[in-house]
Amino acid sequence: MTRSNLPLDADRLWNDVMALAEITDPARPYTRRSFTALFLEGRALLAQRFAEAGLTTRIDTAGNLIGRIEGADPALGVIAIGSHSDTVPSGGRFDGIAGVATGLEIARALRDAGIRLAHSLEIIDFLAEEPSEYGLSCVGSRGMTGSLDEAMLDLTGPGGESLRDALRRVGGDPARLGEARRNDIAAFLELHIEQGVVLESRALDIGVVTSIVGIRRIEIVFEGEADHAGTTPMNLRHDALVAAASTVVSVRRAAERLAAEGRGYFVATVGILTVDPSASNIVPGRCRLIVDARATDPQLTQRFVEILEAESADHAAAARVARATFATLSDGPPVACDEHLRSALRQGAEGLGLTATDLPSGAGHDAAFMSRIARSAMVFVPCRAGKSHAPEEWADREALAAGAAVIYQAVRELDHSLPRNPPRRTSS
Amino acid sequence: MTRSNLPLDADRLWNDVMALAEITDPARPYTRRSFTALFLEGRALLAQRFAEAGLTTRIDTAGNLIGRIEGADPALGVIAIGSHSDTVPSGGRFDGIAGVATGLEIARALRDAGIRLAHSLEIIDFLAEEPSEYGLSCVGSRGMTGSLDEAMLDLTGPGGESLRDALRRVGGDPARLGEARRNDIAAFLELHIEQGVVLESRALDIGVVTSIVGIRRIEIVFEGEADHAGTTPMNLRHDALVAAASTVVSVRRAAERLAAEGRGYFVATVGILTVDPSASNIVPGRCRLIVDARATDPQLTQRFVEILEAESADHAAAARVARATFATLSDGPPVACDEHLRSALRQGAEGLGLTATDLPSGAGHDAAFMSRIARSAMVFVPCRAGKSHAPEEWADREALAAGAAVIYQAVRELDHSLPRNPPRRTSS
Repeated sequence: MTRSNLPLDADRLWNDVMALAEITDPARPYTRRSFTALFLEGRALLAQRFAEAGLTTRIDTAGNLIGRIEGADPALGVIAIGSHSDTVPSGGRFDGIAGVATGLEIARALRDAGIRLAHSLEIIDFLAEEPSEYGLSCVGSRGMTGSLDEAMLDLTGPGGESLRDALRRVGGDPARLGEARRNDIAAFLELHIEQGVVLESRALDIGVVTSIVGIRRIEIVFEGEADHAGTTPMNLRHDALVAAASTVVSVRRAAERLAAEGRGYFVATVGILTVDPSASNIVPGRCRLIVDARATDPQLTQRFVEILEAESADHAAAARVARATFATLSDGPPVACDEHLRSALRQGAEGLGLTATDLPSGAGHDAAFMSRIARSAMVFVPCRAGKSHAPEEWADREALAAGAAVIYQAVRELDHSLPRNPPRRTSS
Repeated sequence: MTRSNLPLDADRLWNDVMALAEITDPARPYTRRSFTALFLEGRALLAQRFAEAGLTTRIDTAGNLIGRIEGADPALGVIAIGSHSDTVPSGGRFDGIAGVATGLEIARALRDAGIRLAHSLEIIDFLAEEPSEYGLSCVGSRGMTGSLDEAMLDLTGPGGESLRDALRRVGGDPARLGEARRNDIAAFLELHIEQGVVLESRALDIGVVTSIVGIRRIEIVFEGEADHAGTTPMNLRHDALVAAASTVVSVRRAAERLAAEGRGYFVATVGILTVDPSASNIVPGRCRLIVDARATDPQLTQRFVEILEAESADHAAAARVARATFATLSDGPPVACDEHLRSALRQGAEGLGLTATDLPSGAGHDAAFMSRIARSAMVFVPCRAGKSHAPEEWADREALAAGAAVIYQAVRELDHSLPRNPPRRTSS
């Protein structure tokens, strides 16, 4: 990696990330959950630094914090850079905030270099990218892309508060959500830590994301009978956990098979499995599990769901229980990143003497929603041992600055090369 | 079933059971957890009815409520009848209290008939037979048989209270626990609902229990790595739930095989399985499960544990996780019921024109501990659909009375036929 003469200030960028890391629940670093007082404290610091960088700052009706510098030719629309400042519980110092701080540092670096873009520049801190206490993720980017509907606003969280009320509480305006919907964004760029080991294991500086996986979440509930574990003979049991456990094994086997085919990225996970009544001397009467399947090719997901549907039904029959639920909870399609933007990012890396590779994103990101309304692309930077969503999450100062510099270079290039009339994709 | 001329009052017995059922947490009938205010309220009612029946009532140092009528020849020792008055959470109206009420009704029926036994008669409400909030079951019958040790007394429950302090709170005296240990019991008899479907499905009145299963509880913990469910490829995962689920499947298969061999009663259950961190988008990093294995033949349990140990290790290796724990939490050996007492029970049933069968008990009972210090046996009565530990638990009034009458007849017969010097079994 050539670290000399980056077009921005690595220390200033690092300082922003570390300053936000300080704003955490002290009992379980690093925790800054969306909609909490700590979250608002983090945003207050961000807003202050946005203002110090000369950005005009506002919160849109979808609760996104946006800093803006007007372009020389506002009719060209906006080049937007952003990510999110909320974290998972006991998360890390980089996931999300690294992308927001990158945008901020780019705005400062442009100012320092006396550069005024033709496009307007916006730095966006999207509201609640991580799964929130209201059961929804990507709240802000859904809102900005017209994907936040009334049913979602009716979801309730702690104390029975609706997402609608929570949104109002953090400065949004659910009654005027349509005003957050954008059609003036010419390009959206997001930096994120990789959350995987591809870059680290190959000692590469930059990942240019080719596509973001589609994520299908399926809830399966098995209902049997909660019988006495001592007095119920094996051949008279209706053990819901036996069906659920067999399904976990099926998920693993099917996912390994589909991933090994090499027709695209595929992973599937059972991360939640609950047992009722959960007593050592009672045969489980009810089990609920959530299957999370991700693919860059929707056909892989489709084949997986067919296998899962058939095998979970077989397991229910074998265990003499009912498969009471087999429901899709959410189904986000995979998203291909924009080739024009990816090309600008690759050129940016090359110009800076950085090594780069194309790679898919196995995680969902705000960029997946933004691609519904704008050309979008992402840069990944290496993170230690692929660890994320954990306190040990780590990216090096220079690695972060390198990723930010690639986006800086791409922004400068795109300011000239973007078509005057950006394609308007219609979205749901 | 011949229901006429039973030697006791079916309605009076039924009234006791129903009166205790009224003493429940109203939010989740039928709940009368050991050591709670409700439990003490139930015991106050029992003590009052013991006294009304002419019994001398005391609480021994192990916290057992005992009512006694002195025999004509106290040197013969004691014929004891009992069970327990505590319940599981959201349990039923019969499990436990039916056996205590049976003893009480027999004492009243003997008095009404003007019969004074040669043996002293004791009716025992054993403390905390169900797994208590302190992590221990059969607290009172352990205490009475010298099986309640200091480590158990150090167990803690709600608010950090030790079992030692809780025992003192309900009238026991942990410092003088040795005084609860008995060597004067010539016979112990316990009535209980079957908690299974053998009697109901064969339309039989009475089950004479041949043996009580040994119960082995094993804790298994798998430790992997809590990775991102999107960015961690299938071949790099360390998924603790995959190992745990495979182990659940192994438990089921091994138990079915051993039960089908016909060499004795065998069941095994995974009733508890917890997943950490339990998020849909995180690969499970840690799973804990409790295996409950029960057999009338300890060799079956031994073979099962060998299979479980080998297969769970294989599953850990296949899932690339560590099997951090494989530990025996408890290991109660199976207990054969006393043949002399069983013979008296069978004769009692026959004399009353009741149909009876021998059968093993898949559930643990206070009688299993009592067999360490005295000849012991049990009578099962049918319960509807085998349901127990649930609000719908149900035994018919006449079925209960028939079971009590069988014990009444057996007591009268044993009062003459028991050897003068009951065998003293040494116990641990």
